[in-house]
Amino acid sequence: MSPMFVPGPVDVDPEVLSAQSQAMLPHRSQEFETIYRRAREKARQLFDTEALVFVVTCSGTGLQEAAIRNLAKQDVLSCVNGAFSQRWYEVAKTNGKQADRLEVEWGQPITPQIVAEALKRKEYDLITLVHNETSTGVQNPIQEIAALVRRASPNTLISVDAVSSLGGIKIEMDAWGLDMVLASSQKCLALPPGLALAAVSDRALACAQKVPERGWYFDLVRMETHLNKDSTPATPAMSLIFALDLQLDRIINEGLEKRFSRHSAMAGLVQDWVLANGFEIFAQEGYRSQTVTTVNNTLNLDIAELNTFLMSRGMRIADGYGKLRGSTFRIAHMGETQISDINNLLAALDEFIA
Amino acid sequence: MSPMFVPGPVDVDPEVLSAQSQAMLPHRSQEFETIYRRAREKARQLFDTEALVFVVTCSGTGLQEAAIRNLAKQDVLSCVNGAFSQRWYEVAKTNGKQADRLEVEWGQPITPQIVAEALKRKEYDLITLVHNETSTGVQNPIQEIAALVRRASPNTLISVDAVSSLGGIKIEMDAWGLDMVLASSQKCLALPPGLALAAVSDRALACAQKVPERGWYFDLVRMETHLNKDSTPATPAMSLIFALDLQLDRIINEGLEKRFSRHSAMAGLVQDWVLANGFEIFAQEGYRSQTVTTVNNTLNLDIAELNTFLMSRGMRIADGYGKLRGSTFRIAHMGETQISDINNLLAALDEFIA
Repeated sequence: MSPMFVPGPVDVDPEVLSAQSQAMLPHRSQEFETIYRRAREKARQLFDTEALVFVVTCSGTGLQEAAIRNLAKQDVLSCVNGAFSQRWYEVAKTNGKQADRLEVEWGQPITPQIVAEALKRKEYDLITLVHNETSTGVQNPIQEIAALVRRASPNTLISVDAVSSLGGIKIEMDAWGLDMVLASSQKCLALPPGLALAAVSDRALACAQKVPERGWYFDLVRMETHLNKDSTPATPAMSLIFALDLQLDRIINEGLEKRFSRHSAMAGLVQDWVLANGFEIFAQEGYRSQTVTTVNNTLNLDIAELNTFLMSRGMRIADGYGKLRGSTFRIAHMGETQISDINNLLAALDEFIA
Repeated sequence: MSPMFVPGPVDVDPEVLSAQSQAMLPHRSQEFETIYRRAREKARQLFDTEALVFVVTCSGTGLQEAAIRNLAKQDVLSCVNGAFSQRWYEVAKTNGKQADRLEVEWGQPITPQIVAEALKRKEYDLITLVHNETSTGVQNPIQEIAALVRRASPNTLISVDAVSSLGGIKIEMDAWGLDMVLASSQKCLALPPGLALAAVSDRALACAQKVPERGWYFDLVRMETHLNKDSTPATPAMSLIFALDLQLDRIINEGLEKRFSRHSAMAGLVQDWVLANGFEIFAQEGYRSQTVTTVNNTLNLDIAELNTFLMSRGMRIADGYGKLRGSTFRIAHMGETQISDINNLLAALDEFIA
């Protein structure tokens, strides 16, 4: 495995890759239903929730669309401080919702204060928040924001994109009062892309029943009906569910707290190196991601050249995303990446700069 | 491989299963883009088209939703003669379209005549047709219906669900004048589930630009923009695309005409056996599917008991679908299933009945 320090798709353990190669089963068979049920049950631990966990064949954006189509009759407050929260806003608009964009400068966090101001102006059906912005490396204070929303606007449903945090950063869905937490397989969960997971609160599922035109593929009410039979409305990506089932065992065996500590320790190493070498971190201090660091390219490194060098050592990092391309680069420290991998990367970076 | 005579997920060749286990790549890398481009180019042969082929991480139903959200501003003519054409109607309704249901008795085909009558009553943006109804084993005369629609209502876009026919039955998208043909990976293509493919005509893509509220995940216009960069809007199911790339080589190496003949020959064997053994075929003569046979269970076989017997020989068939459960059973003859497999199945069925 040649380590990729890119924020997804990340490297997948060979044993988990191989789990995909198991023979197919009829999806409406007891054999498959058993695997599907136990994978979903295990996945609950990642969200720290008693809520139902749905596993859907799509990318994380698919479940951003599910949140919009199911949880908002009309008014959405879209909190934006990076490319993926901006995308969620676009998902709301293209689905015909009345979405208000609450944007702060990229690199800055969404704070409870600015959300409080916005909630004074209108009653929203739904607020969309990205936990960890993969483009900027900002980790938003979801727990604090959720507490504010529950106090200031108790009927507003709270949906959180945890695409690049679930399985790498502690999330307590029930304790924090979140209504829908979604993630995709190819980030901290270290699975191939193609699956997305969401935990959805009972009150959110009850609200969904009253939202018209939810569509079919992302209809959470339909999914819930099938889930009660350990099934899915449409044929699921079976190979990926085989892999999910195994990888969740591996994650639970590592221990969630240990896994979160590993991510945090890797973030510390990378961020210390960045600051010690004359770069700046794009994200404001106090809100720096534990899974991906976006670096201001103050030394004007040629990222393509850097990656050619790194790939000769079997590694690679990521360019900046979207409008941050060129002016930043990104080092992911998520999934199965270990402290020793990070040390090897930083040594290679030292060598390149020297 | 223990042969499953179920209409999807079907058995996948071990070499293709293993192709899923290749190491991940960044999806916005030249390495992946090359694989993605060549897989899409090869897939065109299945549709016999010069149109763009999209590969999307979802089930076939996801692309039924894409057809509805992109190709119909308002009025949809939903032709229904089975569970999956009924589903497409529900997809249209749940997405807020004005859908008219044109239903014939299940087991009967949709004919150009009844479509002609419906087209006299209203001008439709879109007609939805299922080529091969996996629930009833009816193969609708798409070529004839499309010719009628093009004459009688030239502005109506023609979308065809070829979920259980693409790669098993000849489809000539361009020659027949179809606008969108969709299929999923786990039927005649003999891949694991999780991918869906669609070829979309230029005029359909042009129409899509004028349809509001197409959403994000299934927006064909967005997909087209990314396709021009050999990319996808969202992270694709990479392992399944690795498998698709290999399986398309295998299909092309077999030869498409040879593959269609094999499916047709298997259908003939099964249907002859059915009639010779006192059963009836659910689908009307002249419209019987080349990929799956739905059998009226006139001998009142206990299907669970039959499958227990078959599974002791490493085989299984499928119960009837939805409202046809119990009164029918289904034998699939699609994908990598060979004539010799069918002969083994029929011998086992003989033994069970005896």
